[in-house]
Amino acid sequence: MNYRLITRILGAILVLEGLTMLPAMGISMLYGDGDAPAFALSFCLAVAAGIPGWAFSRPERRDLRLKEGFLTVALAWVLLSVVGALPYVLSGALPSFMDAFFETVSGLTTTGATIMTDIDSQMRGILFWRSFTHWIGGMGVLVLTLAILPSGIGRASHLMRAESPGPEFSKLLPKTGNSAQVLYIIYAIMTLVEFVLLMLAGLSPYDAAIHAMSTAGTGGFSNKGLSVGAYQSPAVDWIITIFMILFSINFALYYRMLMGHFRDALRSEELHWFLAILVGASLLITVNILPLYEDFGTAIRYGFFHVSSVMSTTGFALDDFNLWPQASKIIIFILMFIGSCAGSTGGGVKVVRIALMVKQSLMSVRRSFQPRRVTVIRFEGHGVDKDMLSQITVFFFTFVALALLGTLVISLQTPYDFETNFTAALTCVSNVGPGFGAVGPMGSFAGYSGLDKFILSVLMLAGRLEIFPILALFHPAIWRKVS
Amino acid sequence: MNYRLITRILGAILVLEGLTMLPAMGISMLYGDGDAPAFALSFCLAVAAGIPGWAFSRPERRDLRLKEGFLTVALAWVLLSVVGALPYVLSGALPSFMDAFFETVSGLTTTGATIMTDIDSQMRGILFWRSFTHWIGGMGVLVLTLAILPSGIGRASHLMRAESPGPEFSKLLPKTGNSAQVLYIIYAIMTLVEFVLLMLAGLSPYDAAIHAMSTAGTGGFSNKGLSVGAYQSPAVDWIITIFMILFSINFALYYRMLMGHFRDALRSEELHWFLAILVGASLLITVNILPLYEDFGTAIRYGFFHVSSVMSTTGFALDDFNLWPQASKIIIFILMFIGSCAGSTGGGVKVVRIALMVKQSLMSVRRSFQPRRVTVIRFEGHGVDKDMLSQITVFFFTFVALALLGTLVISLQTPYDFETNFTAALTCVSNVGPGFGAVGPMGSFAGYSGLDKFILSVLMLAGRLEIFPILALFHPAIWRKVS
Repeated sequence: MNYRLITRILGAILVLEGLTMLPAMGISMLYGDGDAPAFALSFCLAVAAGIPGWAFSRPERRDLRLKEGFLTVALAWVLLSVVGALPYVLSGALPSFMDAFFETVSGLTTTGATIMTDIDSQMRGILFWRSFTHWIGGMGVLVLTLAILPSGIGRASHLMRAESPGPEFSKLLPKTGNSAQVLYIIYAIMTLVEFVLLMLAGLSPYDAAIHAMSTAGTGGFSNKGLSVGAYQSPAVDWIITIFMILFSINFALYYRMLMGHFRDALRSEELHWFLAILVGASLLITVNILPLYEDFGTAIRYGFFHVSSVMSTTGFALDDFNLWPQASKIIIFILMFIGSCAGSTGGGVKVVRIALMVKQSLMSVRRSFQPRRVTVIRFEGHGVDKDMLSQITVFFFTFVALALLGTLVISLQTPYDFETNFTAALTCVSNVGPGFGAVGPMGSFAGYSGLDKFILSVLMLAGRLEIFPILALFHPAIWRKVS
Repeated sequence: MNYRLITRILGAILVLEGLTMLPAMGISMLYGDGDAPAFALSFCLAVAAGIPGWAFSRPERRDLRLKEGFLTVALAWVLLSVVGALPYVLSGALPSFMDAFFETVSGLTTTGATIMTDIDSQMRGILFWRSFTHWIGGMGVLVLTLAILPSGIGRASHLMRAESPGPEFSKLLPKTGNSAQVLYIIYAIMTLVEFVLLMLAGLSPYDAAIHAMSTAGTGGFSNKGLSVGAYQSPAVDWIITIFMILFSINFALYYRMLMGHFRDALRSEELHWFLAILVGASLLITVNILPLYEDFGTAIRYGFFHVSSVMSTTGFALDDFNLWPQASKIIIFILMFIGSCAGSTGGGVKVVRIALMVKQSLMSVRRSFQPRRVTVIRFEGHGVDKDMLSQITVFFFTFVALALLGTLVISLQTPYDFETNFTAALTCVSNVGPGFGAVGPMGSFAGYSGLDKFILSVLMLAGRLEIFPILALFHPAIWRKVS
């Protein structure tokens, strides 16, 4: 195990995290809410802890084995969450470290589940930092680090693979540091466009920045207790809806479009499945909630907004979907499993996996009575390898098993009802954020015990890193010297 | 498509179903509750409808292709449920045909979900018929038919395969009509032993028969509104617990034991997984519910009884587990997915499938950081074929998808809460019977609309026939002439 190189990378990441606290510190100083010293101190601690590792650790080998890469990614996310929690604790916003850790994990994993109960009276630097963690976490922290800081590492593809969600399908991007930069540029420009549009729709620069960053990472933290519903503005709702959809699409498609392959990009099979589910679910909910809102315009806006919010795993809300008819809640519940497209900033099982499981399921029905019929399952125009298919279904089982076991463990301590506990665990694994019941869009996770918050944090990390890297941390073999 | 042979088999099945109504008619006459004429008329109708098909349909071919076998099984179960509903309707016990159909499907699929709200005042012939459908359905109706009636059919293995639950693993039994008879003899003797023990424990012959039949089929219909809890007898509780466990075990193991391979049978890996989950879950629940019942003896009895009831997918209850702590409810919820062993009379995903998915999941964790590590997954001492593994996970996905879609459809019409609707659909697919909320052990499915009852009936049939044969009915290719 190349511990020195791992130390070096982790050091670099800490330094970068320190730097990412500076914009929040600027906001704090601008508004004078009193949280600036917390950021200054956190910055110093992060940099002081990171520099020795980054600058003085001299690795023998400059490249990272896959096993080391996975370990680095998992450890990096845990470390980032610990250090990212400092501003909350030091400013007094969330005095309990476990609460601050949960909030940071929720931010970095772009889940958006919150401990805060009175958001509107929070310090603005803290709320900015909260949404900024979404923005950083959305595209992957290690990739960003490697794109910016010289860390003396040979090949970064392992790291990128572990951080980018979804099964690796169409190898659209060359796997070098270059592609990380291209992706970040697309990401930054799209965020900027949304920021400008939100300002044009009447939001203050601060509010626009918060919501643009939270949309981009598909996180869902807002600076309003009522979430996006606070603005009561159809224009804002539709802008955010469209950007939640855009950030749930595989970024490789944007890259293709930039290269001029427009038609090619639009022919993506995963995109078609995603849009079909999105539009279908939105229309079903629109019809179902029409009696509640009376006019069709509101119902369709609310339908599309919330379906986009849950499918993209953002978690913004216009209204409390806890109060909706049961059928709409079940649709939202099903969408919590599905999630967004692979290679986007969103979470969940991913549309490509769902599509391939539906195809396999239909084939199994047919093969039950025509067993000798040999059919290859095709996706994006190619036959899909059996190993890939099997990995996908095993992923699904593990995803469901984690959500169920998580529910069991948190139920042992916290007597919330079945609906609350089950959706709390599910929404954490799928990185959506709000669930039903007490953890609904207008509720919070504050009622859980410290241990429960830790369990839910592990679920969020597992969901963000596609489960296996986090579970690998608990596997004895990864810690063995000889592999 | 060999329609004449299918007609002949379906005719034979109807005749047999007519005959199975005679014991219930005898009970009716004995007690004089007024339901005897309903059975007499139903018997006549079933036989009158069955005889022409059975006696006069002359098939060209005497053997059944796989496709035809699957179609026969699926159609037979639908037809049996329609005809089996007649006594309920004609006696006035359940005047609505849809209610009676639901109750019959629930009986034959050994689910045990009920429409009846006032069970204690029902006619005794009807209640006997209700539990008798469990007993018939438990081992498979077609196999019984073929074992008893001459139907002029060459190979019956397709039918047996479609009706016997679980992936076909250890080919312990020779696949002929012979093995069907051996299985039925084991089944009958075990039922008889339970019947005698229950009488020794103080139950009347009628009550003992009802509960022995419902245990054997792992169905769960009782003649008491309070289910087994009505007897307040630890002896009865433990007898039923033990037999629920015995009927959840692969019958091939009993066959092996009969052949003298005792140790071999006890070495079954699926059995070990099953017992480990059963004992672990029972002890967890015992500890969790201890504060409710105060003395340890009651808590452990209730723990083992309910875990055995849900894992075996029987659905008997001693108390309303709706009122238990959340953690116990979640354990019961997870057990609803797992179910019993393959080749038993129970339902659910089946322990062997769960075990193999857990093994695959652990292997995926390891392979995430050691991709070149080639490991074969072993079960029952043999390496498991990749196709089998993939079928198992696809089955799991389809199972979950059906439960979720079922929940969605019933939620459209019936405004029960999330917990009720979700567990109603799940408990039907897994053939357990009771769920949480309004469909709990002391509740009923009476509140659902006719369409919902139909949907739930389809889910029960799909669960009992391992999903694909019932889904195949909706596949256009099965109805095409040229295959």
